[in-house]
Amino acid sequence: MTLSSKPLFSTLGLVLFALTLFFTPPPLEITPKAWSLFTIFITAIVSILLNLLPIITASILAMTVAVFSGVMDPKEAYAGFSESFILLIVAAFLVSHAVHTSGLGKRLSLHIIRHFGHSTLGLGYSLIATDMLIAPAFPSNTARSGVLYPIAYGLAYDCGSKVADGTARRAGAYLMMTSMAGLTLSSGLWLTAMAVNPIGVHIAQTMGVEITFFSWLLASILPTAVAFITLPYVLYRIFSPELTATPHAPKMAVDALSTMGSRTRNEWITAGVFVGMLILWSLSGVFPIDKTAVAFGGLAILMLFRIFKVEDFKHQGEALSTLIWFAILFAMSTQLGQLGFMEAIAHHASGYLVGMPWGEVYLLLTLIYVLIHYFFVSQSAHLIALFGLFLTVAIHAGVPKELMAMMLLFATNFNAMITPQGSSANAIYLSSGYLTAREIYLYGGAVTALNFAIFVLIGTPWILFITR
Amino acid sequence: MTLSSKPLFSTLGLVLFALTLFFTPPPLEITPKAWSLFTIFITAIVSILLNLLPIITASILAMTVAVFSGVMDPKEAYAGFSESFILLIVAAFLVSHAVHTSGLGKRLSLHIIRHFGHSTLGLGYSLIATDMLIAPAFPSNTARSGVLYPIAYGLAYDCGSKVADGTARRAGAYLMMTSMAGLTLSSGLWLTAMAVNPIGVHIAQTMGVEITFFSWLLASILPTAVAFITLPYVLYRIFSPELTATPHAPKMAVDALSTMGSRTRNEWITAGVFVGMLILWSLSGVFPIDKTAVAFGGLAILMLFRIFKVEDFKHQGEALSTLIWFAILFAMSTQLGQLGFMEAIAHHASGYLVGMPWGEVYLLLTLIYVLIHYFFVSQSAHLIALFGLFLTVAIHAGVPKELMAMMLLFATNFNAMITPQGSSANAIYLSSGYLTAREIYLYGGAVTALNFAIFVLIGTPWILFITR
Repeated sequence: MTLSSKPLFSTLGLVLFALTLFFTPPPLEITPKAWSLFTIFITAIVSILLNLLPIITASILAMTVAVFSGVMDPKEAYAGFSESFILLIVAAFLVSHAVHTSGLGKRLSLHIIRHFGHSTLGLGYSLIATDMLIAPAFPSNTARSGVLYPIAYGLAYDCGSKVADGTARRAGAYLMMTSMAGLTLSSGLWLTAMAVNPIGVHIAQTMGVEITFFSWLLASILPTAVAFITLPYVLYRIFSPELTATPHAPKMAVDALSTMGSRTRNEWITAGVFVGMLILWSLSGVFPIDKTAVAFGGLAILMLFRIFKVEDFKHQGEALSTLIWFAILFAMSTQLGQLGFMEAIAHHASGYLVGMPWGEVYLLLTLIYVLIHYFFVSQSAHLIALFGLFLTVAIHAGVPKELMAMMLLFATNFNAMITPQGSSANAIYLSSGYLTAREIYLYGGAVTALNFAIFVLIGTPWILFITR
Repeated sequence: MTLSSKPLFSTLGLVLFALTLFFTPPPLEITPKAWSLFTIFITAIVSILLNLLPIITASILAMTVAVFSGVMDPKEAYAGFSESFILLIVAAFLVSHAVHTSGLGKRLSLHIIRHFGHSTLGLGYSLIATDMLIAPAFPSNTARSGVLYPIAYGLAYDCGSKVADGTARRAGAYLMMTSMAGLTLSSGLWLTAMAVNPIGVHIAQTMGVEITFFSWLLASILPTAVAFITLPYVLYRIFSPELTATPHAPKMAVDALSTMGSRTRNEWITAGVFVGMLILWSLSGVFPIDKTAVAFGGLAILMLFRIFKVEDFKHQGEALSTLIWFAILFAMSTQLGQLGFMEAIAHHASGYLVGMPWGEVYLLLTLIYVLIHYFFVSQSAHLIALFGLFLTVAIHAGVPKELMAMMLLFATNFNAMITPQGSSANAIYLSSGYLTAREIYLYGGAVTALNFAIFVLIGTPWILFITR
């Protein structure tokens, strides 16, 4: 009676790891409850990393253990299910299905292929470029992933890369991974490209750092540009698509477009809904428009016109499993934060910084801020919990406050891919089936390391130069 | 550009109905906000009743309208998604899939057919009898539906009645409807068969009515027995299965059982999980065991053993749509209740009762209590909002308090089928695909009417007799 075909050795190792943690007295000022929750959470994360359990199994199991052991109250454990931004993923995922079935996704992607489709690498660059251009009007990277995902899906599909027939690695996996990496950049490029950026700016202001839309852009543009040039290529080398050169693709796309003929009724309606959602989402920064209700509204219209049919729900179970694992991990991370776990680590770490030169303090704080994202589900929770704290410590240690503030704000965005749950935007790509959670840990980790290097090496002198 | 093929006339009528309500000034002491929410809610309900929209489309549309018009705060609109009892439906639905695929559901249903399978009617009776017998140990009818549903599903399946090939009405639809009707009886038979019963008993106690486990059973047993004999037969006449006499079924079941051979590993494990869940659910009344975590725990074990596979999620989208519509309607109903809508109606109605003989007051109050369930999603919310209020009014009007208390407690259970959302237990049957929301409105309404007649005509003299 084995746990399917997973290596027994790793399983035993993991159980031993969990038990060891469990019987270790909590270090620092961490409470026993927070330590137990951390043990459950980290065991789940490691089981995913080691490929022992799928993310959904690990999450459900962790939640059950947490509730039965009394570490989490049921109410807390289920709270994530009604989180607006998590439901936004679900609704965006369902809408993307209609974008695909209506033919609109295919048409959009054929147009992209017509212009940039000489190579899979070219498609990767064009996906990120699109993202960057629409980002300033999109105060939510989750919503933006809802726009980009169906296009990436269409591109993969048109490249003959499908999950169902085992050709995910032909082009789709690369395109999904690249688009996800693109979101870590587009969100940091513009002050308004991500819900939590303005909150960070506000916190920085209370500490005497003034950041405007343009001073943000000026600081971000150079390191982001370098990362934009680098990331698609590096992923292309380390997470290579099987399909590379596609010299005939643009011509084929033109043919396919003429074969498709003019837009159908369903395409027009879907395009209208899609543009409507885009407009409302971009206005949601200025007016009190609920982004999730926008997505559900779009879905409702598509359902009224039977472009998304009730029967279509039957095969949208991926959206359910995404909702479940994301809601669970989010609730656990939120609870860890509320129990003071991350703060305890941050406080302790900052104790070591006393007497260090500010350059080292700056580097270490940035590194810790990035790595601690392993414990956070969603970027907002991370920034709200730690940005102010880190900035305070840095200013006390003599780090130029503009530099530290900007770097931490960028890090909040560029570290988003360190885990599958690191950003709600990742979830929709994972739910596509083109990527595994483990691949996101590995290559998302690589993207994060690269982002870190680029932003520290190029961003640091650049920010010092422009703020001098 | 029509809204699919639905009759234009009804759609226009509905729009007119909604607009008329919207521009009518709120009656009674209802606030404008509550009135707007009621307009949205009732329009959605009527659109489902008239078969204009599927329940999921109507719910999403209603929620979007409510949020965009500012009638509902997004936070309130999404609150239902993290409701423990709604997530219990989702988890129970997923577990039932494993009960089916493991072969355990088939084996259980074959055993039932072997003994009671001479007719579809016999199967209907045996389903309710099983329910009644396990009910006292099950403080949640939602959890109980999670036990009964896979058995009903297996029975339907073994009768050659499947949703996919259009044979739902052969036997499955009848069995699902009957099992759902059974839950309206089993929940009222025992004080401990339904989460909200003890709360009602507690409220009654504060008004001087003492009810024990046995005095409850004594009062319920006669009307419940009559309803038990009546319901499966009446449904058999008005919602007839195509398959009726099956004289060879028991013999065939015996053969099928011997063909199946001994239990497989998967069956053993699933049976173990199922029994474990049963035990934990039955203990959840005594110990602080979270019923939803029990279901998720069962699912986690089934996933660890790959009896429920990660890939299986893909086709479990029905669970997602059930979660969405139930969570939305529940949130709307909760909000209506919090805005005082139901109370305003109840207060107003009780004004008419002044000076009436107590018999009429008793009858009218019971009737209103039953009919007002059209606005409630979940039985708990209904009882908590109105039971105390109705009992107070009745006692002032001279109705014997034991009689009124018992009848309202029974009504809380026997009215559960008046709408698809009337009880969380209904949701799992609806999600099966064997029934439409409209059929539940129609035949569930008939069952409620019948229950009302039986409990009033037989229950009233009986309760007066035993409490004299």
